[in-house]
Amino acid sequence: MSDPRPIGIFDSGVGGLTVVSEIGKLLPREEIIYFGDTARVPYGTKSKETVTKFSVENIEFLMEHDVKMVVVACNTASSLSLNFLKRCFRVPVIGVIEPGAKSAASVTRNNRIGVIGTHATISSGAYEKAVKKISSELRVFSQSCPLFVPLVEEGWLGEKVTLEVASIYLGSLKRKRIDTLILGCTHYPLLKDVIRKVMGGSIVLIDSARSVAEETQGVLDANGLLNSSRGKRRHRFFVSDEPDRFIKLGMRFLKRRIECVRRAA
Amino acid sequence: MSDPRPIGIFDSGVGGLTVVSEIGKLLPREEIIYFGDTARVPYGTKSKETVTKFSVENIEFLMEHDVKMVVVACNTASSLSLNFLKRCFRVPVIGVIEPGAKSAASVTRNNRIGVIGTHATISSGAYEKAVKKISSELRVFSQSCPLFVPLVEEGWLGEKVTLEVASIYLGSLKRKRIDTLILGCTHYPLLKDVIRKVMGGSIVLIDSARSVAEETQGVLDANGLLNSSRGKRRHRFFVSDEPDRFIKLGMRFLKRRIECVRRAA
Repeated sequence: MSDPRPIGIFDSGVGGLTVVSEIGKLLPREEIIYFGDTARVPYGTKSKETVTKFSVENIEFLMEHDVKMVVVACNTASSLSLNFLKRCFRVPVIGVIEPGAKSAASVTRNNRIGVIGTHATISSGAYEKAVKKISSELRVFSQSCPLFVPLVEEGWLGEKVTLEVASIYLGSLKRKRIDTLILGCTHYPLLKDVIRKVMGGSIVLIDSARSVAEETQGVLDANGLLNSSRGKRRHRFFVSDEPDRFIKLGMRFLKRRIECVRRAA
Repeated sequence: MSDPRPIGIFDSGVGGLTVVSEIGKLLPREEIIYFGDTARVPYGTKSKETVTKFSVENIEFLMEHDVKMVVVACNTASSLSLNFLKRCFRVPVIGVIEPGAKSAASVTRNNRIGVIGTHATISSGAYEKAVKKISSELRVFSQSCPLFVPLVEEGWLGEKVTLEVASIYLGSLKRKRIDTLILGCTHYPLLKDVIRKVMGGSIVLIDSARSVAEETQGVLDANGLLNSSRGKRRHRFFVSDEPDRFIKLGMRFLKRRIECVRRAA
């Protein structure tokens, strides 16, 4: 059994490219269709109803490309809408919250886990619920960091002001003596150095992209959907706004030029 | 002649409320219908094509409420789409660029004017063209300040990091010895104190809301559209996402609670 259909991935913008990168490494035979909703980005300041509506539309677009499963690479959409999306579509749908929570639970030594994300992600309490489901002994401390995304998009990854903003946001988490911190937004891995400077070198930072790739592999395998053919494989990228800014910003996430980006009709 | 129909105003989000406030003061007999596109905010990082499409949809919504004229209170939409919008609709449509440019031209003494705005507004060169049209002797120096909007929305109006970000953005404008600075984004008036600290106390800051109100009055008058009746007058506010965040953020702009906010269907 081999299923050559592509995997569908969507995000509100460019951040989900980190997930593309990890799935590409772990599952080199799989083709990917990516959709970045760059005309309506960001999702992190918007309501559950709006984010769910957008997410349904995004998956409908991916389904037109005959995807065999969907990865919701956006933390906000995963936090607010995943359960609804799973019920709406006939293909498997996974998000980024559970894989991140599992990783964190498996590495913490003092059972104190921090989570940072957008306003919507943190307000939803999704990570907290996912972590508690693994073990009620784990304690979770959360903090929204709304300025991190604009700082990354401005390219200020190591600037002094970025360090100061990080100190303001992370101060209270530091006092909670967490040993593990979930980066609950796909932009945040680009601020790893700054976050480590504030939190101290011994903190373990959980970037869920790798765990999401592993979960994708598991789901494809369990459903007999893996692609075993060795044919040529080509990822395709679609965006709802013009591709230029996506290509430019995307290079920061993928560390290589993205080819074949088209505007979705 | 008296025309009781409302004035339509739209913005990508809450910023246009400053225009509502000034029109309310200058034209107390006029009713206003406001639309904030909070589900798709911000516009400042998006393309001309996308911003124009959204703007057309926003005005179509206002037209359903039988508005007698439209004010594009968003600097980005005014910069990228105004000429197209003027041709599309049968009512007068004005933007915020020309009124701001006129104000600046009338107050500068050394003919050196600065403009700050979103990435899209600055890239469009709209303010520069509008100022040059008034007089070719005027020189314009521009700078985009993408982090100002998220800083305002975070409520960090006087924080030390805000001052540092302002110093980074405004440093080069300061060296150009401008005596007048156009605040080319409706969020920026909330950072007036910080901007003045960086630029020096003698700088004249142009907040176009007042000039837009005057232009609105002029256009209504010229077209015989002013409302002279003394009846009860009620502003109505519509948003494309849920009203809560709009009401909360809007208080920073209006300095009073906004009543009667509904989600557009």
